[in-house]
Amino acid sequence: MFIRNAWYVAAWADELDERPLGRTILGEPVVLFRDANGQPAALQDFCKHRGAPLSAGRVTGAGLECGYHGLVYAGDGRCVRIPGQTHIPERAGTRSYPLVEKDACLWIWMGDAAAADPAEILDFPYHSDRKWPHKHTMYPVAGNATLLIDNLMDLTHLGYVHATTIGGNPSAHVDAKTDVKTTEHGVKFTRWLLDIPAAPTIRKAVPELGETIDRWQEFEFIAPACIVQWSGSVDANTGAYDKGKRDGGFQARLFHAITPETEASCHYFWSGANGYRIDDPQATEDLFSELCRAFDQDMAMIAAQQQRIATFGEDGLVNIVADASRVHMRRVLERMAAAERTPPREAATV
Amino acid sequence: MFIRNAWYVAAWADELDERPLGRTILGEPVVLFRDANGQPAALQDFCKHRGAPLSAGRVTGAGLECGYHGLVYAGDGRCVRIPGQTHIPERAGTRSYPLVEKDACLWIWMGDAAAADPAEILDFPYHSDRKWPHKHTMYPVAGNATLLIDNLMDLTHLGYVHATTIGGNPSAHVDAKTDVKTTEHGVKFTRWLLDIPAAPTIRKAVPELGETIDRWQEFEFIAPACIVQWSGSVDANTGAYDKGKRDGGFQARLFHAITPETEASCHYFWSGANGYRIDDPQATEDLFSELCRAFDQDMAMIAAQQQRIATFGEDGLVNIVADASRVHMRRVLERMAAAERTPPREAATV
Amino acid sequence: MFIRNAWYVAAWADELDERPLGRTILGEPVVLFRDANGQPAALQDFCKHRGAPLSAGRVTGAGLECGYHGLVYAGDGRCVRIPGQTHIPERAGTRSYPLVEKDACLWIWMGDAAAADPAEILDFPYHSDRKWPHKHTMYPVAGNATLLIDNLMDLTHLGYVHATTIGGNPSAHVDAKTDVKTTEHGVKFTRWLLDIPAAPTIRKAVPELGETIDRWQEFEFIAPACIVQWSGSVDANTGAYDKGKRDGGFQARLFHAITPETEASCHYFWSGANGYRIDDPQATEDLFSELCRAFDQDMAMIAAQQQRIATFGEDGLVNIVADASRVHMRRVLERMAAAERTPPREAATV
Repeated sequence: MFIRNAWYVAAWADELDERPLGRTILGEPVVLFRDANGQPAALQDFCKHRGAPLSAGRVTGAGLECGYHGLVYAGDGRCVRIPGQTHIPERAGTRSYPLVEKDACLWIWMGDAAAADPAEILDFPYHSDRKWPHKHTMYPVAGNATLLIDNLMDLTHLGYVHATTIGGNPSAHVDAKTDVKTTEHGVKFTRWLLDIPAAPTIRKAVPELGETIDRWQEFEFIAPACIVQWSGSVDANTGAYDKGKRDGGFQARLFHAITPETEASCHYFWSGANGYRIDDPQATEDLFSELCRAFDQDMAMIAAQQQRIATFGEDGLVNIVADASRVHMRRVLERMAAAERTPPREAATV
Repeated sequence: MFIRNAWYVAAWADELDERPLGRTILGEPVVLFRDANGQPAALQDFCKHRGAPLSAGRVTGAGLECGYHGLVYAGDGRCVRIPGQTHIPERAGTRSYPLVEKDACLWIWMGDAAAADPAEILDFPYHSDRKWPHKHTMYPVAGNATLLIDNLMDLTHLGYVHATTIGGNPSAHVDAKTDVKTTEHGVKFTRWLLDIPAAPTIRKAVPELGETIDRWQEFEFIAPACIVQWSGSVDANTGAYDKGKRDGGFQARLFHAITPETEASCHYFWSGANGYRIDDPQATEDLFSELCRAFDQDMAMIAAQQQRIATFGEDGLVNIVADASRVHMRRVLERMAAAERTPPREAATV
Repeated sequence: MFIRNAWYVAAWADELDERPLGRTILGEPVVLFRDANGQPAALQDFCKHRGAPLSAGRVTGAGLECGYHGLVYAGDGRCVRIPGQTHIPERAGTRSYPLVEKDACLWIWMGDAAAADPAEILDFPYHSDRKWPHKHTMYPVAGNATLLIDNLMDLTHLGYVHATTIGGNPSAHVDAKTDVKTTEHGVKFTRWLLDIPAAPTIRKAVPELGETIDRWQEFEFIAPACIVQWSGSVDANTGAYDKGKRDGGFQARLFHAITPETEASCHYFWSGANGYRIDDPQATEDLFSELCRAFDQDMAMIAAQQQRIATFGEDGLVNIVADASRVHMRRVLERMAAAERTPPREAATV
């Protein structure tokens, strides 16, 4: 079951050109389009005349035109044109979803529209910050969304899955000093790996780093679907950990938004921002390439894990010490899911 | 559910050479073959010995030989040879289906064989008429058969799906004068598009047509599975519409037979006959190529529509004015389906 | 339903190098690996931490390491390492299966481990006999295991499926003198085809054979999953049949082990040993190539048969005289399956 009353990333804003874009979100086929004024909108991807997907149509001045028999829909879901007749019945309208453009993303609300408050969308100003040039993409993932969030909330996998890229030495990750905190909207953890050799990706990005480094990873999970990350590495024993001197060296900010497609698949919107050679576009490209290599490794593992869990379920699995953040994150999701299943108190007393 | 007591096209007659042909019809695997005398027959595609498909076998003088252990079946389904034994039990026979060759098609009856009357097969003499040279094919369609019949019974889609081929201007199609009539076996509609520019396909076929044309489309649906079509275009205002002068110009006869394969797919047997340059084989080829381009556009739309209807169903859909013929056709199909579900009155009173 | 209390071939011994091998057996995902001492082991292919397939991991000195977060499993299923903690809960262990290496095969027991007795594994010493040089492989089969055993227990298919390879004349196979005997663990049949032309494969292997030959085929089915075969052909009327002179000519020993993967697929482990030109490696290669061609023909037929049986079931099928061995084999399997469903007598009286 999906948590519906929440903002999810439906697309990168720049994915949407003059053509409509079809995408399944929380199990529902959705079509995204920009109207003649550039205003983005999201409708159920289903013409109420004969069931054709509206994503196979085109945008006209009046709205989104079905490619089969030409009915036209406005961004709010109203049918505004039926070829051959002037009367337009109200039930020819299709469902629309609240959609907000913010920080390079299109955010959709799949639940009760009355409860949708754009002020609750998280802030990620780095997507338009010249000090953090970034590159982004969307990965289709053959696994349940929660498996991908698990992946990001237990970084001990870096030494195993990503030894050749962002990981490096497994024991450095296992021995990291880790601090986990509850936040208003989720969980935040900080890890420090002190006096270790730099992982291959970091060494490539900033070759002038010393033989050993101090590395931090700050991950904040904002339920139910986003993680924002700040990672950095500086020369070892230069005061980053104990004196807060975190300038220079390698610096990256990552944005992760995980939107369920079906129970067994999700859309992974992520970006990587270069904070170490901000005037060098190639540095941003190179960081992105390295992250692609690493995340491809994750995608393969998650697809394999999904297949096993589809067979055996998760009930017999065993939590370990390294799972602290992950277990916390799961509890937050369970509380949100339970809250959606329970009618509000006022309703219950009526 | 399928309407079983009806004749369906199982194959083009020329699809069947000396080899057997396997095809699923109304959800049942069928094998078609010609015996040593060229007589076509249809059997369940299932050897009663070990279940091998007979379509993987070969035709011998005695009948259709299973390719696994050599049992042989006659066209009426009797098993006529079992290697290694003389006794042939009656239950080694497999089901046979009435099959009739007529007008270039093989027509099959999947229901109660006692009710099969070849006189009820529709006449389409144009398939062997030298004045209507034609070319035919079969398209596999990833959608329910009724969605394809819908497509053919609401031509307002021509301006949207087929703008670049047989369609042309959308509003000309929407504004067509349309007449819908009930017939003994279905529905017939006639549309007139007066004083309009010729659609690209028609312009290519008959370049000497004037700047504007009068165009007619006569479609007759013969339930549950066939549509015969006569289309023509002549110079505008030369008396085609009001004085019945329909000679010259562009003339085409099309045959459409839609045979369910499964609930989500069908076989589309269609032909296009050239009535405007009958001594020019290239003209027939060119017409066929244009129709292929147009029908490919339909196939993509129907496959997309099938997926949405599989998710959402058809219950919430809204009929529009342009749907008159289509809605009528659906009622005829529903009556036939209901009649198959109801036991005949005599049986009920026993 | 599968017969679980039995030894099945899980892999050829030489399939297992320093990497783990994942394979579904009797519907269960299994991982095979050799520990640091070369000892093979079989575990459920499912890490008890987060469900990742252990076959995506690697073998270390301590055991099989999960590729996701580094848990390590010993060959007996115990979890022996959890990164980041010293306490290892017992329930972090995964299921292990008895596994025995014998005669070039790895034999697995998927049922009650207490009942697994390696002494019950069949002997096939020819796999390490210099007088029978062989080559082996595994074919993935898109059909139920029993359909493949059927195939091997009714050789009248040779004249139809394999006319161009190992079969030859259909009637010679139908007219073969066949003797069927019950054995302690299954069924054995012997067929004699006397004074017939050699099949193409045999003629190619031993060109110096006379114009006609006497050919024998001895097949022993050892329930539930193996068939051992001895086939030979010598010049006709030289005493092979009546005086037991079976030296010279063409001689081959084949090993067939059929392991269910799912209800609709199986693994086919087979080998072919050359007993006629034992010092010529090319003769062994050539025999193997011919067998591949023949068995490819079987695989296509079995996949087609599986599809039909999935639709229609086996209930309406008709046994014929040629099915004697096959029918016998099926009864043995049914008895074994029934025995697994019935609780032992002692238990019943408690």
